[in-house]
Amino acid sequence: MVNIHKDGFPVVLGHEAAGIVESVGPGVTEFQPGDKVIPLFLSQCKECRFCKHPKTNIRIDAMSPLDSRFTCKGKKVYQFSGTSTFSEYTVVRQINLTKIDPAAPLDKVCLLSCGICTGYGAAVNTAEVKEGSTCAVFGLGAVGLAAVMGCKNAGAKRIIAVDTNPDKFEKAKVFGANEFVNPKDHDKPISQVLSEMTNGGVDYSLECVGNVEVMVSALESTVQGWGVSVIVGWNMHEFSGQPIKLITGRTWKGALFGGFKSKDGVPEMVKAYMNKKLMVDEFITHNLTLDQINDAIEMMKHGKCIRTVLNVSPQ
Amino acid sequence: MVNIHKDGFPVVLGHEAAGIVESVGPGVTEFQPGDKVIPLFLSQCKECRFCKHPKTNIRIDAMSPLDSRFTCKGKKVYQFSGTSTFSEYTVVRQINLTKIDPAAPLDKVCLLSCGICTGYGAAVNTAEVKEGSTCAVFGLGAVGLAAVMGCKNAGAKRIIAVDTNPDKFEKAKVFGANEFVNPKDHDKPISQVLSEMTNGGVDYSLECVGNVEVMVSALESTVQGWGVSVIVGWNMHEFSGQPIKLITGRTWKGALFGGFKSKDGVPEMVKAYMNKKLMVDEFITHNLTLDQINDAIEMMKHGKCIRTVLNVSPQ
Ligand SMILES: NC(=O)c1ccc[n+]([C@@H]2O[C@H](COP(=O)([O-])OP(=O)(O)OC[C@H]3O[C@@H](n4cnc5c(N)ncnc54)[C@H](O)[C@@H]3O)[C@@H](O)[C@H]2O)c1
Ligand SMILES: NC(=O)c1ccc[n+]([C@@H]2O[C@H](COP(=O)([O-])OP(=O)(O)OC[C@H]3O[C@@H](n4cnc5c(N)ncnc54)[C@H](O)[C@@H]3O)[C@@H](O)[C@H]2O)c1
Repeated sequence: MVNIHKDGFPVVLGHEAAGIVESVGPGVTEFQPGDKVIPLFLSQCKECRFCKHPKTNIRIDAMSPLDSRFTCKGKKVYQFSGTSTFSEYTVVRQINLTKIDPAAPLDKVCLLSCGICTGYGAAVNTAEVKEGSTCAVFGLGAVGLAAVMGCKNAGAKRIIAVDTNPDKFEKAKVFGANEFVNPKDHDKPISQVLSEMTNGGVDYSLECVGNVEVMVSALESTVQGWGVSVIVGWNMHEFSGQPIKLITGRTWKGALFGGFKSKDGVPEMVKAYMNKKLMVDEFITHNLTLDQINDAIEMMKHGKCIRTVLNVSPQ
Repeated sequence: MVNIHKDGFPVVLGHEAAGIVESVGPGVTEFQPGDKVIPLFLSQCKECRFCKHPKTNIRIDAMSPLDSRFTCKGKKVYQFSGTSTFSEYTVVRQINLTKIDPAAPLDKVCLLSCGICTGYGAAVNTAEVKEGSTCAVFGLGAVGLAAVMGCKNAGAKRIIAVDTNPDKFEKAKVFGANEFVNPKDHDKPISQVLSEMTNGGVDYSLECVGNVEVMVSALESTVQGWGVSVIVGWNMHEFSGQPIKLITGRTWKGALFGGFKSKDGVPEMVKAYMNKKLMVDEFITHNLTLDQINDAIEMMKHGKCIRTVLNVSPQ
């Protein structure tokens, strides 16, 4: 959950990372110096009624960005999402960290800290994609590509990849998409295009763009009767939709971090990667250092990369 | 599905009824004169891919109001929802009719033709209310009261009945509601009132009003993580909602006819009534004749009745 203090800045940004424990504070029982770990922007305490509920990874977290341990020249620097990883060192709570396989390559599995689990889990945990089904994934950034991979691993037969940037289609094929639609190639609403391609709509759709209109299109692209649509993209505006789309048997859901209970789920995903059941390397298009971060952000803005891994250690 | 021809009129209205087969046309194999039957505004053919799907009662029905067999002075009179029951006689397709227990009292079980199944099924089939849960039902007409009964029969512990007309609360108690909220008694949004009453929101909410703002309130009244909200009320306007309400783990669904496959489900509901597992008589506040229909509609408009049963046979 993106959690910036109302004053916003100064803040150390960054939440998708992997690292090694340097030291532990008093009361820390789960970690030791040298452990390979992944920071968790969505914490898991295992004690609250949400953590104890088998069906959700959402919880109420009282941590404030003001609890940050960062200072700069005596002035407080805020923490971002309980993590702050664009930094050589960070201080996180035990519940914001998980231990992973010591053999895991940090410069790869760092991607399991957000985007990949988010998209993959939205397909397998939240949509619960079934074998033989037809799926549509809207938006083919890392999150959408991971959703494509989730649909594929769940046994979907048709995976329709939708993006306004056709440069993304080649990569989507790598992850398992087998049909490709660019909304810009059509005059009709995209939900109608998909409905015609699939005799009434897809079984599952996943919105991985972060656009309220696409969220509604994704819902409307599912088949009446049993269609399930999952909102993954982030947007603070309001959507407008028609009750009839739900009354006629569609289900609308959403997922944060792909529904994974973070401390439990991330080491499992690392294991799946180590056992070659999950692609991770394929998401990495660039490797840069922290001082090149602005270049990385420019590439991201222009759709020129999927994920850029930044090395934050001094070279 | 309310299906009025674009020209609208003249039409024979009415869709909630019970009757006796007077005669059958060529090709009719399932019914014989004398059978007690209930008309189904939502047909079930058992042959299309929707009817064959275990999880939905929604189907695509090609029947047009123009297929009506009614004429008056040589001019076509349209059919309403494949039924048209404000009439002594009507002509329906086989797929719009189901046979029921010959011992069933028609002036009671007629209510199983729409409202009761709609509300009851929304709770048990669509929301799938679990034992021990907390539910909120918005709107306490026949549909909402039936939803209350569904929650109760499914084992809900707390059933919060919400209506702007407090005259409805007494009846809601009969069906199993144990807490009562009138939105007019509060300055805060009703979702906040319910959230405070339930430490974060209800497990299930059911919108049985037919108001887009109430639909969104009902969603927002459910607890993050696992809350499920079902739209039952009918409205052709658009709702506006926030993606975050879904991303934080709520599920939004809708139901037509409570998710019951009509031809299969209605006789089961009649059986449940005959076995005293289901209340029906309690919904009936008035009995009138067809020529008093305008009085019945006035009472309905002013919230002075729950269900009025009209006798359409000549007295
Ligand atoms: N729910 C969560 O827990 C969670 C976690 C991480 C990210 N997110 C959100 O997921 C979304 C995707 O993240 P990302 O890193 O993959 O982003 P990204 O910017 O790399 O990818 C978005 C893709 O959507 C495409 N797109 C833009 N407009 C489109 C349209 N109208 N139709 C179809 N495609 C369109 C873009 O071309 C791009 O390929 C973001 O909104 C992000 O905030 C959510
Ligand atoms: N989905 C379906 O298959 C289906 C089938 C039948 C009926 N319906 C719909 O269900 C809805 C209810 O039907 P009914 O016959 O019970 O109607 P009704 O008019 O008898 O009951 C509606 C109740 O809502 C209450 N209400 C009005 N505004 C409210 C508000 N802001 N907050 C809380 N309560 C409010 C009214 O006081 C009334 O008690 C209608 O919209 C109807 O069209 C849907």
